[in-house]
Amino acid sequence: MSATVHHLRPSDQPSLDPLMALVSADMHRVNEVILARMQSDVPLIPELAGHLIAGGGKRMRPMLTLASARLLDYSGARHHKLAAAVEFIHTATLLHDDVVDMSGLRRGKRTANMIWGNSASVLVGDFLFSRSFELMVEDGSLRVLRILSQASAIIAEGEVNQLTAQRRIDTSEARYLDIIGAKTAALFAAACRIAAVVAERPTAEEEALDAYGRNLGIAFQLVDDAIDYASDGATMGKDAGDDFRDGKVTLPVILAHARGSAIDKTFWQDAMEGRRASDDDLVHAKTLLDRTGAVADTLGRARHYGRLAIDALAGFPGGQAKAALIEAVEFAVARAY
Amino acid sequence: MSATVHHLRPSDQPSLDPLMALVSADMHRVNEVILARMQSDVPLIPELAGHLIAGGGKRMRPMLTLASARLLDYSGARHHKLAAAVEFIHTATLLHDDVVDMSGLRRGKRTANMIWGNSASVLVGDFLFSRSFELMVEDGSLRVLRILSQASAIIAEGEVNQLTAQRRIDTSEARYLDIIGAKTAALFAAACRIAAVVAERPTAEEEALDAYGRNLGIAFQLVDDAIDYASDGATMGKDAGDDFRDGKVTLPVILAHARGSAIDKTFWQDAMEGRRASDDDLVHAKTLLDRTGAVADTLGRARHYGRLAIDALAGFPGGQAKAALIEAVEFAVARAY
Repeated sequence: MSATVHHLRPSDQPSLDPLMALVSADMHRVNEVILARMQSDVPLIPELAGHLIAGGGKRMRPMLTLASARLLDYSGARHHKLAAAVEFIHTATLLHDDVVDMSGLRRGKRTANMIWGNSASVLVGDFLFSRSFELMVEDGSLRVLRILSQASAIIAEGEVNQLTAQRRIDTSEARYLDIIGAKTAALFAAACRIAAVVAERPTAEEEALDAYGRNLGIAFQLVDDAIDYASDGATMGKDAGDDFRDGKVTLPVILAHARGSAIDKTFWQDAMEGRRASDDDLVHAKTLLDRTGAVADTLGRARHYGRLAIDALAGFPGGQAKAALIEAVEFAVARAY
Repeated sequence: MSATVHHLRPSDQPSLDPLMALVSADMHRVNEVILARMQSDVPLIPELAGHLIAGGGKRMRPMLTLASARLLDYSGARHHKLAAAVEFIHTATLLHDDVVDMSGLRRGKRTANMIWGNSASVLVGDFLFSRSFELMVEDGSLRVLRILSQASAIIAEGEVNQLTAQRRIDTSEARYLDIIGAKTAALFAAACRIAAVVAERPTAEEEALDAYGRNLGIAFQLVDDAIDYASDGATMGKDAGDDFRDGKVTLPVILAHARGSAIDKTFWQDAMEGRRASDDDLVHAKTLLDRTGAVADTLGRARHYGRLAIDALAGFPGGQAKAALIEAVEFAVARAY
């Protein structure tokens, strides 16, 4: 199924290793900034923030900032602070997401809201969000501030949009794409784009990196939404079927509903509206998803956006950084296989 | 009791009318910015934000920005956008506060979280917070961005500090002052201070306005915390006794506990830890507060900070703006009488 994606190393499974190797020295500096700036005289703040920040996330977004800077041969140090700012925005979003979704598990660990309560998660999220702006202000680029404040507003807009689409089986694929474009892809795009700003590159390169990040982010979320119907909690660190039980109308559901019989359509509507949320219902849902090819086609859409991401890099010179960024896309779209 | 506060018009009750009259034309512009910038393609955002923003708040913080700018004879228009940014930060904080406190009533109206749910309140708060930074970025002053991003981080820190002090009768007056200095006074201070930045005044004037706002904010919160034991929901738009039932250890409680007998101390500990939260318990609490002079002395502390606020204005020339800012302090400390 992954044959349509261009592999640089077709014999291997694509992995994030080249990206992680590329940025490991820089990431060490970013982690120092993250650790220093999540401190506070109020002990609950580093305690709660540390739980999530040390909790095994891949640091995908700051890695993209660092790798994009490498792609542009940027030799300064401004991107360390800004990559930390990006990760703080992401962490704040996760803390608030877990409150919104009433999640119990993230990356295989109990979520902060389960341990410290919703209130602490909301407020520590606010703290990290404010800290991210403090980091950007210290950097001093109004252009970076504009990019990341706009991305933050778009993320929140996307989350509210998702909330109001929840349990609505009539959500269109276009609206779903709007939602994931905002809640996920906007920060991927901004994380890449700001590297071009600090490297003082022309707008065309800013836009190319924005397009790379945005399409990667969409592919990434599409695969995440497919995985929710494929994984089990033990292997993926996420409760499989969470989206199903929460009535989140993701693309697999949209496709299966559109392609289903009248009886199937009723099942999906009942399921999304919370009247069919048992384990048996989830098994039945997976059967319908298989029969309609809905998960496979969701992954097909992901490969499409993955190709757009790779094509966006066409104008940049080849080398280690470009290869790592391309393989990151291949990894993102291959995760579910 | 208010005799120790210097009244400009001793025959009248101090009011906010002079402040509101001073800034009414400017506030009209600020309201236009607020209305324009709370819009979104996601309808729930303006709906929910509008509920709170149109919900009868005094717009105290943006009024302070506008009045401070008038005090400095600032003749530009930058303060309109920045005052809106300040109000957005405040509104985002209120939305999150209501989730944290599980409030049901604010300013006599049902809170947004009661109508639309906690999730929507968290996310729309995030949206308004991001929008406030977009407004600041459009203004383009890194100095303003620094002041308001620091204030935002301090507010969140103060809220977490308050959360961890909740139900702890051993909270000291010093820690309580830290909490209200952060959660309330930091934004009052920043709201005033940024006026000196846009008016391009020397640091000493920035600091004087910061001190005015900070001390006014502390006085304001002290009186609010006293009112919680004096008002009823119908007159104050806030459920009287909320702090008592939530186990918020405010200064009236700290003083009454410190001055009480062993039996009284046990009562306060039981009350703050949630074992005495009935209406009868609240009546008994008010008796103890009266007997120990705890509410009266909380108001005394408020007058002290009010005097500091007024003294901070000493270096500025007299006139309509200064008189209005002084009367705002007198109003703040006289509200509970």
